[in-house]
Amino acid sequence: MRNLRFMREAIRLSMRKMQQGKGGPFGAVVVCNGKVVGRGWNKVTSANDPTAHAEIVAIREACRKLNTFRLDRCVLYTSCEPCPMCLAAIYWARIPKVYYANTRRDAARIGFDDAFLYREVARPAARRKLAMRQCLRAEALAAFRLWESNPNKIPY
Amino acid sequence: MRNLRFMREAIRLSMRKMQQGKGGPFGAVVVCNGKVVGRGWNKVTSANDPTAHAEIVAIREACRKLNTFRLDRCVLYTSCEPCPMCLAAIYWARIPKVYYANTRRDAARIGFDDAFLYREVARPAARRKLAMRQCLRAEALAAFRLWESNPNKIPY
Repeated sequence: MRNLRFMREAIRLSMRKMQQGKGGPFGAVVVCNGKVVGRGWNKVTSANDPTAHAEIVAIREACRKLNTFRLDRCVLYTSCEPCPMCLAAIYWARIPKVYYANTRRDAARIGFDDAFLYREVARPAARRKLAMRQCLRAEALAAFRLWESNPNKIPY
Repeated sequence: MRNLRFMREAIRLSMRKMQQGKGGPFGAVVVCNGKVVGRGWNKVTSANDPTAHAEIVAIREACRKLNTFRLDRCVLYTSCEPCPMCLAAIYWARIPKVYYANTRRDAARIGFDDAFLYREVARPAARRKLAMRQCLRAEALAAFRLWESNPNKIPY
């Protein structure tokens, strides 16, 4: 089954790159028309980039390769259920289908914050561990109004 | 007030970069010890990168500049309430405090999916618009076990 081959590639990346000291044990591939167009692995600690999760890295590579910001004909295979950052990135990239192997609870069990983050993101701002304050909304809204009236905008 | 100065810089970026055709009307700055160490603006359509939201771009720049994957002494100023992708990235970067101006509802009103995404991320996988399927967990768990027993790992 083709799906299993792609998932095995994501799992292989999760192992090999971790063993090379690149970061946590996570791998992902983006597939378009039966071909891998993006490969990713966790590079948080090796690239000093907290956003360099396997899925984000794979999505960015696929977009570079396909020269687009929309992956709406692609499928993502990831060795672990995406964290909220990667899940939202999948939506922004318009990827319609995701296969995953390990779960957020499996990730929590080996020390990653995925399950905690799902709870935090679902909370109203006032009840989060992160301090969030609002200011200057009226000034910022002016930019939104400019966007609305901009005839040259590229919606996404 | 210092906070307002930094927020005004984020708002200025949101306007100027949108007017230059870089992407949506969003700007952000990361501040450490009273100095801006990262600036970001939406580059989704100009860089063909669906993950290039203002906050992500600012966090990546701050990490590059400070040579770290932890921004636990930094504050983020963003011209709009972060979407779930950016909110989770803020947690992963260990940023303890965020100032924002526009809200997710303001963003929804000008055509961005932020409010929709907050609902989707909070749902169990089976009830999301995105198709998610699990497979090969047993094989992927082997990578997690290797991580657990790896004496050279860098936790984050």
